[in-house]
Amino acid sequence: FNRQIADLPVTIFTVMSALARQHDAINLGQGFPDQEGPQDMIRLAADALLDGQNQYAPLTGLPELRSAIAEANLRFQGITVQADSEVVVTSGATEALAASLMALIEPGDEVVLMEPLYDTYLPVVRQLGGIPRIVRLQAPDWALPRQELAQAFSARTKAIILNSPMNPTGKVFTAEELAFIASLVQQHDTFAICDEVYEHLVFNTPHISLMSLPGLRNRCVRIGSAGKSFSLTGWKVGYVTAPAPLATVIAKAHQNLVFATPPNLQRAVAFGLRKDTDYFTTLAQDMATQGTILASGLQRLGFDVLPYQGSYFVMVDITPLANGLDDVAFTRLLTEQARVTAIPASAFYDANPPRNLIRFAFCKRAEVLIEALNRMEAWK
Amino acid sequence: FNRQIADLPVTIFTVMSALARQHDAINLGQGFPDQEGPQDMIRLAADALLDGQNQYAPLTGLPELRSAIAEANLRFQGITVQADSEVVVTSGATEALAASLMALIEPGDEVVLMEPLYDTYLPVVRQLGGIPRIVRLQAPDWALPRQELAQAFSARTKAIILNSPMNPTGKVFTAEELAFIASLVQQHDTFAICDEVYEHLVFNTPHISLMSLPGLRNRCVRIGSAGKSFSLTGWKVGYVTAPAPLATVIAKAHQNLVFATPPNLQRAVAFGLRKDTDYFTTLAQDMATQGTILASGLQRLGFDVLPYQGSYFVMVDITPLANGLDDVAFTRLLTEQARVTAIPASAFYDANPPRNLIRFAFCKRAEVLIEALNRMEAWK
Ligand SMILES: CSCCC(=O)C(=O)O
Ligand SMILES: CSCCC(=O)C(=O)O
Repeated sequence: FNRQIADLPVTIFTVMSALARQHDAINLGQGFPDQEGPQDMIRLAADALLDGQNQYAPLTGLPELRSAIAEANLRFQGITVQADSEVVVTSGATEALAASLMALIEPGDEVVLMEPLYDTYLPVVRQLGGIPRIVRLQAPDWALPRQELAQAFSARTKAIILNSPMNPTGKVFTAEELAFIASLVQQHDTFAICDEVYEHLVFNTPHISLMSLPGLRNRCVRIGSAGKSFSLTGWKVGYVTAPAPLATVIAKAHQNLVFATPPNLQRAVAFGLRKDTDYFTTLAQDMATQGTILASGLQRLGFDVLPYQGSYFVMVDITPLANGLDDVAFTRLLTEQARVTAIPASAFYDANPPRNLIRFAFCKRAEVLIEALNRMEAWK
Repeated sequence: FNRQIADLPVTIFTVMSALARQHDAINLGQGFPDQEGPQDMIRLAADALLDGQNQYAPLTGLPELRSAIAEANLRFQGITVQADSEVVVTSGATEALAASLMALIEPGDEVVLMEPLYDTYLPVVRQLGGIPRIVRLQAPDWALPRQELAQAFSARTKAIILNSPMNPTGKVFTAEELAFIASLVQQHDTFAICDEVYEHLVFNTPHISLMSLPGLRNRCVRIGSAGKSFSLTGWKVGYVTAPAPLATVIAKAHQNLVFATPPNLQRAVAFGLRKDTDYFTTLAQDMATQGTILASGLQRLGFDVLPYQGSYFVMVDITPLANGLDDVAFTRLLTEQARVTAIPASAFYDANPPRNLIRFAFCKRAEVLIEALNRMEAWK
């Protein structure tokens, strides 16, 4: 078997979700909402099935969805793109990321990444023969270490992966940080793969796409996710916006990875992306409220809650409650005894991880979050 | 950009389907049925959407679908497999193939393939650093060249890709041919990746899975497709059956490629796989009838029709009608002038392809096939 792949751990999300089920724990680990997405989208997807949208969609996506993605780029980020040549629909953001990296990376190319990082980035980069250059953001404030980041770039840098709003930290990169990253990308004549799946989930903070910055339009791959923007994570509809020559190559990678994405779901997502601004504001407001409920409750329990400005997630320092247990042992105990599941943050690091951080997901109904807090209160 | 991927042609299916639309031609190129799959499955998929099956499915698939796949292995091929550890649901057979090759191949490994071949095999093998060893089946009868095949195996062979029923030829490998391939696989201690997406589409010929042969159970990856078995190509639900240690590695490749597949579609496919034998027999009978309509009509038009025993496809030799045009020029002319689209078979070869073969798809309603024949009759 391929050793690199065989040696990968099973994703921490699967491991912790299985443990949660086993102990009947409230799952604040894997990030999926417990409320269904918009009923009108779901109904439209069901109608499209019955209406005969059941054969291969075009390779790069339904024209109506590509148009809606182009419109959303303009509406939310002021980015003008061609729907027919600069948009590729994928089977989720995971495939979008894999196809984008395949299109860009050749063996020996360097890729700059920021730690803590989402758990598919490193294995995909390595599988393609890319050389990761990892810069670590430091808790508690996750500020960008500018000098280190600058030093991670070299003549062999092919791309930086930028995840903002960031999983697992909830950090939203500031305009100043983005300008600094943009200057490095331009200076080193490289690309940025912008994982912006949480683009609509920001709390009193604007989300600025790196692609919207002057000079960055043709250096960015921008990845979005219907799963995250519409609370429909099971649909696995993702999308890539990239300059035409690169989008063409991403489409070729997609051609051999999956080829196409269910047309009925695409049709519903096209409809969703055209919803009025209220929908997206309410989505963010509701998530902000849930974040506040969980974060303030965790603080009251005695955790040190780290700042977050977006995403589904909040990181906490367990030191005050962990009695010397590390993150892995503590999340296990929390699942088994308090029956609340979180993700040990060491899973988001390549080597020498901090052992005092865990990630909670707050994309759950208020009563579920409160019940989780009550369980932890009763247990601690 | 990655040169290997950038240099790939856009798939011939997309090219010819676009040309067909442009000329309002009947599309007998890309293989997708023009009749919808079973209404009960479609209704179930729609109900599951409304019923809240809209968040991440488990990484390897819904338990109910994995059970149904295990049952189908037993029922149709007498193969006993563990639903929980030997089945992985993927986003279509294309992803199944990519994940299986990723799990097996390391750079320098040799992979035996048979030409003509489906157009994703070679690029994926090459992208992974695999070295293709291609054996060519010869028209008109596509018999297995045993000595050549034996010589293609070496100490560095990691796998053979076997596609039966075979796209684009419609060949169904015989028991004797399969026994010979099995002996080579065992003798060289390698694996077989069995692309059996057309397993239910055989015409007066049994489909035998290589995996069902003695000693092959733990050397095979068997790939199936709901798209092909239920005429729902847009759903992109595929599945892999493999011995547990290999299935584990395939799941890890899947984890970073796509992660999961829409749960409502999985639920409907689980239901479909449990349909009574009538359903599968009728599917094959109807397709056989369509094949006969098209093949006999093409013969009457003057094409030399090659034998086929399964799949959606029939190959024809265009020499009698082509006036010296090659397959590419002829299919273009056929689209533009007769307004019928086929696939030039040279697209299914790596180098030095024959230039006198084209592939027609007969997965279309009888009246559509007849109209296509009438158009060609009027034109020729
Ligand atoms: C693909 S499962 C993981 C979901 C997620 O994005 C997360 O929990 O971080
Ligand atoms: C994935 S599009 C091609 C469909 C098909 O299998 C074929 O036409 O050969």
